[in-house]
Amino acid sequence: MPSKRLLSGMQPTGGAGLHIGNLEGALRQWVRLQDEYEMYCCIVDWHALTTMYDNTEAIAPKAREVAAEYIAGGLDPQKCAIFLQSHVKEHAELHLLLSMVTPLGWLERVPTFKEKRDMLDERGGGDESVSYGLLGYPVLQAADILAYRAHAVPVGKDQAAHLELSREIARRFNRLYGEVFPEPQAVINEMTAVVPGLDGRKMSKSLGNAIYLSDDADTVAKKVMSAFTTPTKIKKTDPGVPENCVVCQLRRLYDPENYSLAWEECRSGARGCVQSKRELIEILNAELEPIRRRRKELLDDLAQLEEILRQGAERARATAADTMTAVRQAMKLR
Amino acid sequence: MPSKRLLSGMQPTGGAGLHIGNLEGALRQWVRLQDEYEMYCCIVDWHALTTMYDNTEAIAPKAREVAAEYIAGGLDPQKCAIFLQSHVKEHAELHLLLSMVTPLGWLERVPTFKEKRDMLDERGGGDESVSYGLLGYPVLQAADILAYRAHAVPVGKDQAAHLELSREIARRFNRLYGEVFPEPQAVINEMTAVVPGLDGRKMSKSLGNAIYLSDDADTVAKKVMSAFTTPTKIKKTDPGVPENCVVCQLRRLYDPENYSLAWEECRSGARGCVQSKRELIEILNAELEPIRRRRKELLDDLAQLEEILRQGAERARATAADTMTAVRQAMKLR
Repeated sequence: MPSKRLLSGMQPTGGAGLHIGNLEGALRQWVRLQDEYEMYCCIVDWHALTTMYDNTEAIAPKAREVAAEYIAGGLDPQKCAIFLQSHVKEHAELHLLLSMVTPLGWLERVPTFKEKRDMLDERGGGDESVSYGLLGYPVLQAADILAYRAHAVPVGKDQAAHLELSREIARRFNRLYGEVFPEPQAVINEMTAVVPGLDGRKMSKSLGNAIYLSDDADTVAKKVMSAFTTPTKIKKTDPGVPENCVVCQLRRLYDPENYSLAWEECRSGARGCVQSKRELIEILNAELEPIRRRRKELLDDLAQLEEILRQGAERARATAADTMTAVRQAMKLR
Repeated sequence: MPSKRLLSGMQPTGGAGLHIGNLEGALRQWVRLQDEYEMYCCIVDWHALTTMYDNTEAIAPKAREVAAEYIAGGLDPQKCAIFLQSHVKEHAELHLLLSMVTPLGWLERVPTFKEKRDMLDERGGGDESVSYGLLGYPVLQAADILAYRAHAVPVGKDQAAHLELSREIARRFNRLYGEVFPEPQAVINEMTAVVPGLDGRKMSKSLGNAIYLSDDADTVAKKVMSAFTTPTKIKKTDPGVPENCVVCQLRRLYDPENYSLAWEECRSGARGCVQSKRELIEILNAELEPIRRRRKELLDDLAQLEEILRQGAERARATAADTMTAVRQAMKLR
């Protein structure tokens, strides 16, 4: 059993679930990390309340869907604990205790707080839509990580500030009460290639340019047929520029052994975009089909999925309970 | 068994514990209320962290002392659940959930927040001494009350604003998720006589003019001998003004049947202040001795006291767990 612990968090919010940008940009890395670390994968349903407090019925089903997609994408419940944050009450206790040692000023200065506040303002919620919990988002995040005394957290670039705050909270706690928490280190994804969306921009839920794990084969086909290629390649014999073509980029990503011949034919005008798209559809669907099938199996047998989440929560709770014993001892609470 | 629930909170902070002003001003009322309500007496050790986070070792022993004094003063662990807040984790979970529905602006406008912030500033803690948890004090207080779906809370006049905020949080939760919480009503203490301190001002820990339950008989005697009487009554035969004399006031409080003769003798110059003081010492010590003895018994047998607190927490937890089931159901979290 690996000795170092890693905490990864997944949001149960938003529309259609994971897209292949998430799959390649994050999940694949997690699948590798589950062999290197004692890993805890936390679906942060309480966090979802910071922005969805007036629309909570979506949270529980979405959490199950997220769990199914992560497992279908390769996370192994035997190797890593997959669980809901709200099933492990220790997160709430640690959140409360950390709230007592986290300076208010640290939170007021977090840039994402200001962004979220503006976003909620735009939705027209007025003054009351910004909650105390929204300000405390980083405290809850620190509790998620520190509950497992995690050594590592896989992060995207935009989450670096929040992890830094978790590290600062850990340091402050250790300074006040003695060494309880290791400072969690960021594990930056080594995968630098950004997955392009159908329009050539970075694949993103909010840009509407994504291929989802929940898309069936026909939907994938339709989306690929609509993808941007080389704008100046009108006829098959026109030369293509694979470096600027979404279809060629995805081909390289999903067919790393053999893509170069297809790229040469594209460049030389020996093949047209429609052929490239048809082949990519085959390749993509072959890649995604087992994930889709597993995803469907899991969501068709919710009892089994609940059992996976129950067992995950049990393992998580055992570790978090040990941490809380150490925390209470250090704080001299009994 | 009474059907309406009442939550009362006790602070485990501060120096010498309860004084007779607390005994007469609050505890006597609670002792009556334990027959009228299903009563939960919560020693709020987590709240103490808002101002004592850098001095936590005092909290646990002080919590035991407070429990002993409330029991010695007449709270019956068979009738009401006496327990530590930190022993009932449901408070932390409800605090977290309420933090998501409590508008930040409501908390920023609480006058006592500003006062406490200024107090911490004066202690020289600087910017970092004001914690996120200090701002959230009223949210934790609301969680304490609402965890028991309490109908009633005994409050002093200075706590009215905080209870109003708890009521507002309950209303907002009910509006968002359906009716879960009754709006807790303030039970204002009907006892309007303020207990005078030794110097004639209101008895108060911070004024150094108090007689404590922890004072032994000699200390009580010394304190009473130093108390203010009628300034113009120098000789025994000088006329006294019992209405302005601390000793006469306390005599009336603790000897309601027979005080009037002593008052007449004081007024007419038939008795001197020393006689009045000696008699008050007798009366006070007779009143306080059983409380002192019970207090000492409880603190000499900490194992028994821990067992009382354990049983209290168990009863509290059963009620709070029911509430949390209803809360999660209403919020559609599972």
